[in-house]
Amino acid sequence: MAKVKRIDHVAILVDDLEKHLSFWRDALGLEMTQIVDVPAEKSAVAFLPVGGSEIELVKPTTDDSGLARQLEKRGPGMHHICLEVDDIDGMFARLKEKGIQLLSDAPKMGVGGRKYAFIHPKSANGVLVELYELPQ
Amino acid sequence: MAKVKRIDHVAILVDDLEKHLSFWRDALGLEMTQIVDVPAEKSAVAFLPVGGSEIELVKPTTDDSGLARQLEKRGPGMHHICLEVDDIDGMFARLKEKGIQLLSDAPKMGVGGRKYAFIHPKSANGVLVELYELPQ
Repeated sequence: MAKVKRIDHVAILVDDLEKHLSFWRDALGLEMTQIVDVPAEKSAVAFLPVGGSEIELVKPTTDDSGLARQLEKRGPGMHHICLEVDDIDGMFARLKEKGIQLLSDAPKMGVGGRKYAFIHPKSANGVLVELYELPQ
Repeated sequence: MAKVKRIDHVAILVDDLEKHLSFWRDALGLEMTQIVDVPAEKSAVAFLPVGGSEIELVKPTTDDSGLARQLEKRGPGMHHICLEVDDIDGMFARLKEKGIQLLSDAPKMGVGGRKYAFIHPKSANGVLVELYELPQ
């Protein structure tokens, strides 16, 4: 049976990477390994690994994305939690069967063969949950 | 120098434990190890370990707590992220020195000798961050 393995990352929506890195990196002392531009999601992401998981700071790079609108409406804050699963197809099928709302009809293929899917916050008590499976 | 070791837990504010366990436990398949009543915080907490971290579902048990007011105002959703640190006194001093706002004047002593402190969301781009150190 498909299983959740661990918390992969917690994504935090920010309006300015440098400003917020001054807290997470400079004050808390987390290492910031890279900033990656993700044109497909109209955002730039700063990665801060911490004990096998990561904090990700996500900054919209345009004004017209869902992320940008959410930032405009709610301000910076926690955006989603990502859980690594061992079998995303199996998990996806089980969630559908149990009536959980998903944001796509099937898992999507991401960068580096990583398959992922999002669960609608309506089905996860207000939390946007991402699931992903590393390529074997 | 004081360091963050890992994400200890992500706390999710809920209005009904059983209703939300139907997602986290029954659909996602996480194990729910215990539900603990925490009168000091006027809440009940369900613990769901996942890969060295935990998801915690926090339900206010009265109508007059800060948690209950937040639930009333914003609805269920992510509440805070807790990071384990190796030296909370050292971390607390460094954060203060850097002008980070904390919710107490010093780390507090919790259940089982666990010392903890909260960082004000104003200083952590909208995220309520808990720090804690396990007793040696």
